[in-house]
Amino acid sequence: MKNIYVQELKQVPVEKQKVEIVERKGIGHPDTLADGIAESMSRALSREYIKRFGVVLHHNTDETQIVAGKSKPAFGGGEIIQPIFILLVGRATKEFEGTWIPTDKIALKAAKDYIRRAMANLNPDEDVVFDVRIGEGSTDLQDVFMRRSGKAPHANDTSFGIGFAPFTETEKLVYNVERKIYNEFRKEEKAIGEDVKVMGLREGDKITLTIACAMVDRYLDSLKDYIAVKESLTKWVKEIVTEYTSREVEVNVNTADDYERGCVYITVTGTSAECGDDGSVGRGNRCNGLITPYRPMSMEASAGKNPMNHVGKIYNILANFIARDCYENIEGIEEVYVKILSQIGKPINEPRALDIQIIPKKGYDVKKMEKKAVEIAEDWLDNITKITDMVINGEVDVF
Amino acid sequence: MKNIYVQELKQVPVEKQKVEIVERKGIGHPDTLADGIAESMSRALSREYIKRFGVVLHHNTDETQIVAGKSKPAFGGGEIIQPIFILLVGRATKEFEGTWIPTDKIALKAAKDYIRRAMANLNPDEDVVFDVRIGEGSTDLQDVFMRRSGKAPHANDTSFGIGFAPFTETEKLVYNVERKIYNEFRKEEKAIGEDVKVMGLREGDKITLTIACAMVDRYLDSLKDYIAVKESLTKWVKEIVTEYTSREVEVNVNTADDYERGCVYITVTGTSAECGDDGSVGRGNRCNGLITPYRPMSMEASAGKNPMNHVGKIYNILANFIARDCYENIEGIEEVYVKILSQIGKPINEPRALDIQIIPKKGYDVKKMEKKAVEIAEDWLDNITKITDMVINGEVDVF
Amino acid sequence: MKNIYVQELKQVPVEKQKVEIVERKGIGHPDTLADGIAESMSRALSREYIKRFGVVLHHNTDETQIVAGKSKPAFGGGEIIQPIFILLVGRATKEFEGTWIPTDKIALKAAKDYIRRAMANLNPDEDVVFDVRIGEGSTDLQDVFMRRSGKAPHANDTSFGIGFAPFTETEKLVYNVERKIYNEFRKEEKAIGEDVKVMGLREGDKITLTIACAMVDRYLDSLKDYIAVKESLTKWVKEIVTEYTSREVEVNVNTADDYERGCVYITVTGTSAECGDDGSVGRGNRCNGLITPYRPMSMEASAGKNPMNHVGKIYNILANFIARDCYENIEGIEEVYVKILSQIGKPINEPRALDIQIIPKKGYDVKKMEKKAVEIAEDWLDNITKITDMVINGEVDVF
Amino acid sequence: MKNIYVQELKQVPVEKQKVEIVERKGIGHPDTLADGIAESMSRALSREYIKRFGVVLHHNTDETQIVAGKSKPAFGGGEIIQPIFILLVGRATKEFEGTWIPTDKIALKAAKDYIRRAMANLNPDEDVVFDVRIGEGSTDLQDVFMRRSGKAPHANDTSFGIGFAPFTETEKLVYNVERKIYNEFRKEEKAIGEDVKVMGLREGDKITLTIACAMVDRYLDSLKDYIAVKESLTKWVKEIVTEYTSREVEVNVNTADDYERGCVYITVTGTSAECGDDGSVGRGNRCNGLITPYRPMSMEASAGKNPMNHVGKIYNILANFIARDCYENIEGIEEVYVKILSQIGKPINEPRALDIQIIPKKGYDVKKMEKKAVEIAEDWLDNITKITDMVINGEVDVF
Repeated sequence: MKNIYVQELKQVPVEKQKVEIVERKGIGHPDTLADGIAESMSRALSREYIKRFGVVLHHNTDETQIVAGKSKPAFGGGEIIQPIFILLVGRATKEFEGTWIPTDKIALKAAKDYIRRAMANLNPDEDVVFDVRIGEGSTDLQDVFMRRSGKAPHANDTSFGIGFAPFTETEKLVYNVERKIYNEFRKEEKAIGEDVKVMGLREGDKITLTIACAMVDRYLDSLKDYIAVKESLTKWVKEIVTEYTSREVEVNVNTADDYERGCVYITVTGTSAECGDDGSVGRGNRCNGLITPYRPMSMEASAGKNPMNHVGKIYNILANFIARDCYENIEGIEEVYVKILSQIGKPINEPRALDIQIIPKKGYDVKKMEKKAVEIAEDWLDNITKITDMVINGEVDVF
Repeated sequence: MKNIYVQELKQVPVEKQKVEIVERKGIGHPDTLADGIAESMSRALSREYIKRFGVVLHHNTDETQIVAGKSKPAFGGGEIIQPIFILLVGRATKEFEGTWIPTDKIALKAAKDYIRRAMANLNPDEDVVFDVRIGEGSTDLQDVFMRRSGKAPHANDTSFGIGFAPFTETEKLVYNVERKIYNEFRKEEKAIGEDVKVMGLREGDKITLTIACAMVDRYLDSLKDYIAVKESLTKWVKEIVTEYTSREVEVNVNTADDYERGCVYITVTGTSAECGDDGSVGRGNRCNGLITPYRPMSMEASAGKNPMNHVGKIYNILANFIARDCYENIEGIEEVYVKILSQIGKPINEPRALDIQIIPKKGYDVKKMEKKAVEIAEDWLDNITKITDMVINGEVDVF
Repeated sequence: MKNIYVQELKQVPVEKQKVEIVERKGIGHPDTLADGIAESMSRALSREYIKRFGVVLHHNTDETQIVAGKSKPAFGGGEIIQPIFILLVGRATKEFEGTWIPTDKIALKAAKDYIRRAMANLNPDEDVVFDVRIGEGSTDLQDVFMRRSGKAPHANDTSFGIGFAPFTETEKLVYNVERKIYNEFRKEEKAIGEDVKVMGLREGDKITLTIACAMVDRYLDSLKDYIAVKESLTKWVKEIVTEYTSREVEVNVNTADDYERGCVYITVTGTSAECGDDGSVGRGNRCNGLITPYRPMSMEASAGKNPMNHVGKIYNILANFIARDCYENIEGIEEVYVKILSQIGKPINEPRALDIQIIPKKGYDVKKMEKKAVEIAEDWLDNITKITDMVINGEVDVF
Repeated sequence: MKNIYVQELKQVPVEKQKVEIVERKGIGHPDTLADGIAESMSRALSREYIKRFGVVLHHNTDETQIVAGKSKPAFGGGEIIQPIFILLVGRATKEFEGTWIPTDKIALKAAKDYIRRAMANLNPDEDVVFDVRIGEGSTDLQDVFMRRSGKAPHANDTSFGIGFAPFTETEKLVYNVERKIYNEFRKEEKAIGEDVKVMGLREGDKITLTIACAMVDRYLDSLKDYIAVKESLTKWVKEIVTEYTSREVEVNVNTADDYERGCVYITVTGTSAECGDDGSVGRGNRCNGLITPYRPMSMEASAGKNPMNHVGKIYNILANFIARDCYENIEGIEEVYVKILSQIGKPINEPRALDIQIIPKKGYDVKKMEKKAVEIAEDWLDNITKITDMVINGEVDVF
């Protein structure tokens, strides 16, 4: 009915392959910062549209461009010499049913609020110069009518989404190391910036974590302080990795440092965007929070796309949800991949194809999993607008 | 010595999997246009640096942002109402050995020249407004010294590159259909724009090509003309596909058209960037020209990165070259994947790991291929700066 | 010695001419807002330079451009639909004696702080989008050396300054009506915006004041409220004019209103820059606070020019000071005009010509005033750097 | 009827005053360049509106901002290092009677075309980066209706215009020296740039002309060449001045040159906007082509204002025309000043006051001139829309 296919996938699960590479760009990385801003604009616009008209109107704000500034960091506290420039880009419905919506102002405010929330030492009013170039998008009246009566909107494009479950140990490791540095270690150690990039390389049973962590200069009086924080971070990471793996883990932090030449990774604001690193939406983490070159990936930038009919966003989220639910609720799955292809102009709950590919555990038969898997997929398709709500309410991350 | 690993990959080759999705965004797609501009800027800067200083100096121009304009296309010829806005972003060495380099001007000229070459109906001087925000990049003197003596430069980052060979039938099809529409059919039929997106879906032995092709309004007097060109394109594609596959191929062009509502895909300039579609570097084709969600992919944007020490660019090109050479020169390969991981600060010809994964044809032993594969990889590593030259000379495409 | 000339001017004093036109653009008028921002940037930079280097370094920030936004004012409170765009333009010394100065950030902060201080209902962080394009200016080392030893700097240009005293009744009236509305009436009546333009026309002994006063919508519940405030303002102005003249004064407020068509002058932020009125430095008030087409005027924009060696600024201030001091300290002056011409490259206290033109009161002889007038002029020239200090300390207004 | 007043002005005519200062900023001066661009945009829009709708629609493009670039001039030919940035600002009617007008594109093209026409060595496509921020202006339908029936439009503002006749010798000299250098000498001597500033100071019967003339580096092989051209220009100017005055004239060219320090006024493009000098509309020449601090002046920027109902433009042109016609057609006038004050909302041919102030030649009675003067003024008021046509057709200069 709904073009759902379940099949066995014959390949070595990633966990059992010899080599694995996984990367996560942390919240303060310029690309992730762009993602975060893009997504916050879309959420703010969605909420405003709902408040005024009861439905989300057409918009896409998935093209923020961050142009690096210039800084002179220094132990004890340096300076931003030239502010970061952030161009907010997209389309949005600016007039509807006789009312003007202050889209540019909403977008600007959302971007600034996001920076304030996400970054401890970056002041959006002083360290950043913004420009807003949000074009006029047009909302299809018929579409609004349909959605007001609770029907699924039509796909905006021919596009596909991809998801998988479960995470391998290396994936869990890379994801959680960044998350915990941001949420826990940074709270205790103020010198830790938000621009933390974690690269995981597994060679057989040996995992090497290479962490690039921007430090904040004002909380470090000297090189000695810097080295101490670096060692403290290394030690802390070594401790938490045991929660995720029993494999041997090597942890390297800021490997490009060269103390003699005075090359250390200190910043004024906690992000390399302050000096030399530009950032752009959709160039970093996929919507599951990781870059996984050994896994199939979608090139779609989820962040900033409208959560209502943009299949480039919804299908990626949906595919991950279906994969996760299959893995958690069906016995015998080693790995599962979900791929969904849209048909432009058709309701988004009627995809062109929804492929569930399962690598079964030894002794399990994919055939027997089919019914359950189809049920899970159908259930999600029947409730697809729930994803819109979850995105708007901030209950699902997309980067 | 050079951390080269050859191993057998145990999985169903993509050609034999049940489902395959492949996409190519054509030259005039906003994302590809951004890629093309970014790459042309880097090439122009590289040539200028070589002309003035004998070596490529530090730069990266991989962040062009295209903000859609506004147009009113009409049969017989419509109008651009609001020009497209293109922000050229990056870093470049602006002063070296006492000389100032007009980086912004070079970048601007390169961007305009590229548009003139690539797009038949988009006038960069009238239909586009540019801004240039290229920051000051600093060139490491030691590095220049080294390169002047012919040594391989040091990797700028911890990053990886990925390549594979050969293309599946569907991949060849998708790639070449766009290439031939652009290079051949467009030359004969002026109404064909450059913004052609080809999506290929293979289900078993049935391939469906979904083509979105922007038409140019001034060459179409009426809806009848439009329909005629669409049919002519469909027919032409159906003919050329037989060069690449004997599978059944369904060809759909501009499926979102709705003649009754007057919804057809006409444009003034041949690209959807003229009205509503923004574009950004690194969000479209990988450096082999395709988006292949069923294949491992790198998230790195190759276009615009410096071709000298940016491993995010060089390793992706290198991986594809090694894969291709292995496939062409070693008997018995069904599919081969190459993955290369850099070490920041180490010479780029000394990667952290260079993984060659081979799916052998039936009856072949990967062990016996190892020596030859290592030789091919070593040879490329020994001549890695050749890639720099090829990029600058335009002998290798990266999108 | 110092090229000071004193002569009698044979003409009817403006006060006694039949017709007189005087205009003042209030603090919130887009042109004056641009002046205020330009001047605040120069002051902030000057202070920072002094703090870091003991002297003001080269800069000029006299080219702010305000691009109007879009608003939908409404009784009870409307909305800014599209933020105002403000481009901060100029040159400044960005690196000096090995230190980088965060000129762009200082300029941005100064501009925002100024708006916060000057405008009660315009939020620079939410209602305005800024861009900063401040080029690299170069400071002459010899010049810094000289100024550090207390010598007068050299004139940057061939330019002239003009001043006069005293104000006519109409001039006093126009100037003070705006000042008092801003400083007094606006404090009591929150609906009064800062964009108040006062045009005074004197025909013989009849003065007509035409006041355009932007009202702030959130403090007005209805058209009735609006009319009430308008009447209250008219009445208040009629009362204060008696302090400045005994002539008959007609007061017209917001004469373009058309109640039936709903045309009234309400705004969301108190300035017409929110919707349709662009603004630019140097197009409004001269450095004495007025536009006086019946008087000689300089076209130089004083606001934003560096207060150290830019004769276009310093000589206009100086000419007004000398005129005022002559008028206040020399008996028998009806009107006095001072005109100063610089010589590029010569110390600013050695003008090419300093002309003092006096219209004496009946029975007075200009010859007898000469010595005193020359003394006053010489005294100011000897202490010319005092003007720099006064400007930086905010003790002298220039618009 | 039409509020026209004629009166005698009792003052020493400027020609007979002891001191006189007159300035003209040439075509390539950044402020004049801004004026020229602003005016060309308005003319192009006006023509387009007439072509499409038969009447000029509402617009004002009087706020161009030029931000200086960066250059490295050198004998034999230097380089533009960073392009000039030009922000085109204004409002225009973008949609009318169901048709969209490509205002931004028209404005951009007009600006570039103007630069191509006016500047021999400045390439608008390579040496300049443009941005366009032209807001939506709204055209009053009633007003269009009226104008379509040939009636005079209503004044957009309370504003005034000023004009005088004849030019003094110094005024003629300053004006024509720049005009002839631009139109004649520059044609013969390619090294002469368009950025020529002429300052005239008359002290009694001695006139000093100070000329700052940007030279174009590619046409000068050495300092020797530069000096030769400078001397040749000086000589040429000394010759042409005799056409305008029999007074003694001293001619100084590029007085700030310092050959020993290598300080000479050479440029790559012929304008100082290429390096360090920003420019803005309305800060240079008044609509008669001069800055005349000894004359009454209007602060209105005429350039770029709509030529249909913007009294800030029309009344300045009108005042000069009436003054000129009075001077040429009425015997006995030594000097005549015309001042016109508008009434917002009233037809522009019904000013609030039109003041004609005449300084008669010895033995002439202003009373007897009144009738003729009123006739001239009335005739112009009756044919006021002719000014609109003349402006659009380029028959009247405004800077």
